[in-house]
Amino acid sequence: MGNKMDLKLGIIGGGQLGKMMAQEARKFGFKVFVLDPTPGSPASQVADSQIVADFYNAEKIKELVEKSDISTYEIEHINTDVLKELVYEGYTVHPSPEVLETIKDKSRQKQMLNQNHIPTSRWKMVEKDLYSEVIDFGLPAVQKACHGGYDGRGVFVIHEKQDVLNALKCDSFLEELVDIEKELAVMVARSAKGEIKCYPVVEMAFDERANICDTVIAPARVNQRIQQEASDIAVSCVEALDGVGIFGIEMFLTRAGKVLVNEIAPRPHNSGHYTIEACATSQFEQHIRAIAGFPLGSTELLVPAVMVNILGEEGYEGRPNFAGIEDVLAIPGASIHIYGKKTTKPFRKMGHVTIVDKNIDTALEKAEIVKHKLKVKSY
Amino acid sequence: MGNKMDLKLGIIGGGQLGKMMAQEARKFGFKVFVLDPTPGSPASQVADSQIVADFYNAEKIKELVEKSDISTYEIEHINTDVLKELVYEGYTVHPSPEVLETIKDKSRQKQMLNQNHIPTSRWKMVEKDLYSEVIDFGLPAVQKACHGGYDGRGVFVIHEKQDVLNALKCDSFLEELVDIEKELAVMVARSAKGEIKCYPVVEMAFDERANICDTVIAPARVNQRIQQEASDIAVSCVEALDGVGIFGIEMFLTRAGKVLVNEIAPRPHNSGHYTIEACATSQFEQHIRAIAGFPLGSTELLVPAVMVNILGEEGYEGRPNFAGIEDVLAIPGASIHIYGKKTTKPFRKMGHVTIVDKNIDTALEKAEIVKHKLKVKSY
Repeated sequence: MGNKMDLKLGIIGGGQLGKMMAQEARKFGFKVFVLDPTPGSPASQVADSQIVADFYNAEKIKELVEKSDISTYEIEHINTDVLKELVYEGYTVHPSPEVLETIKDKSRQKQMLNQNHIPTSRWKMVEKDLYSEVIDFGLPAVQKACHGGYDGRGVFVIHEKQDVLNALKCDSFLEELVDIEKELAVMVARSAKGEIKCYPVVEMAFDERANICDTVIAPARVNQRIQQEASDIAVSCVEALDGVGIFGIEMFLTRAGKVLVNEIAPRPHNSGHYTIEACATSQFEQHIRAIAGFPLGSTELLVPAVMVNILGEEGYEGRPNFAGIEDVLAIPGASIHIYGKKTTKPFRKMGHVTIVDKNIDTALEKAEIVKHKLKVKSY
Repeated sequence: MGNKMDLKLGIIGGGQLGKMMAQEARKFGFKVFVLDPTPGSPASQVADSQIVADFYNAEKIKELVEKSDISTYEIEHINTDVLKELVYEGYTVHPSPEVLETIKDKSRQKQMLNQNHIPTSRWKMVEKDLYSEVIDFGLPAVQKACHGGYDGRGVFVIHEKQDVLNALKCDSFLEELVDIEKELAVMVARSAKGEIKCYPVVEMAFDERANICDTVIAPARVNQRIQQEASDIAVSCVEALDGVGIFGIEMFLTRAGKVLVNEIAPRPHNSGHYTIEACATSQFEQHIRAIAGFPLGSTELLVPAVMVNILGEEGYEGRPNFAGIEDVLAIPGASIHIYGKKTTKPFRKMGHVTIVDKNIDTALEKAEIVKHKLKVKSY
């Protein structure tokens, strides 16, 4: 497969993950086709062409996969039935539609993890009325939608019985509200040939207003034992899935020192953006290597890094206006990524900044300057 | 200028330098237009659109510059007259057409350097017949074309008087054949606001068959005094030019320990490709920052690196076939860049590989494996 180097890559989803994936595919000389409902999507700006269609349009997904040598995706909420048919017909789709189906239903994902003896927080499907379930399960609890959650959506915290009135109205499960010391994440790649590589354990910090990850610290400031445990668990997840591609494994480190898997993303992940500047191989390049069946690259962290998401400011919607860009670019070791989205919205991911610095504390101080100075408003 | 972040960048030249420049411009969210005579040029593959025209087509260059907020170039051999008119009309072109005119005539470039007390090898214009000039100048000597030289072309070594018969037939000068210990290079960026930053001194090694640089070693294995001298000289060159953008300064380190400027490139340079993986800011991002008037990024070398050019094999022409890709990708710390050129030719630059490794000797050993394994033939 390698000799031509003008392979055609199809990507379902044209957001920032698709864009950065396409950028890396270009480095290999690949052609890139994107499917996304928004014309002029970020990924389309670096792709050969975009099919404008939604993620459940079987006909258009078929068109994309049929004209690509390898197909992949940057989002979970897509039509897996047509992908299964296409794989059956002999087309290459990584990660497999079966892996995606297991992951996109969060309750199936948890079942799979527990069947493989991978630790998660205690949980239970909501099978009868929520009120009785809550009484049985115990409070406080987190209600999670089985389908469609993303960036803090599809999650509802039930502190008291009367909160049930405002709860999610969909297939859901209850999860123990664990006492979290830190949220951790690990990117793991597994190639079409079965090679596995694991990136360093990182820390994720959240914007509390919107429950969106806004800062990633690499490496995580946890001891060696926790690092080893988190890496081992992350690798087990991908082995259990039999997945091919790159996977982001989000974990809780509890105050009691336990590592529990929160959820898995079958694609490049926000917590892995730091790899572009800080690691020998970026998560996006690694994904391409994995799905093309190439040898995986070194995941060595060359320098500590802090990544800050650039989120749309509350109260602004429209053509984005980035204030503070020059202040950020003046910070030694800061790299800026603007995704090229035409419209900003409150908490929308409009870009990110990675700061590399031999001293992680200095990198964190610089990250605070970024958060303070860089604001996305609108015209 | 910074707040919009959907600035339009025009690039004259659609080769690999334009492609990597465009890739970085995309990271900032910029739009990119390219002008190149070859349809589907490497840069066009990541640009919004390409104007298919040659580099002396005044009308088409005008069209490119008029629709761009900032214009730049990745080659020297372009129409500077139309660029001067456009700058006069108020359009932004960096580096300035005057800087380009000084550089693209190698004799004017040398004059400028000497007027600014920047050391070069001894040289003299050929004003009368070459035979008499050679007798006066002394042998051996190097004859260099004033215009149009590139990758070893436009250079002729005169060892004995009778070699004059085969010499270049064009405006030229004679240059002392210096006793070279190493060839060095330094990338220097100067921003539209006058800020200057200098990258580490690197070593260039050449494929002797075609006199094309095939390996770059960062940092150069020279002592601190030489490093300082080379950096100081490189910065003086860009200050003397009053240039805006990134510049590659090629230098000779003589066996007597002197540092002499060989020539200047007013653009990203092959000797700076290693910065993509090994430095906090790549030469391509730095160029964009410089011409956009943004603060310059850190030029810190995060890890030693060796870059190897992937040159088309002798005896092959046509659609490229890259043998050995998987062997290269299996080397820890190796990153591959395939430019996406549709045709390979002997010694054509088809891509490059950068190896990062904390131990420079290990990186050099890995580079030998790359040279041995990776071959570009044709179908």
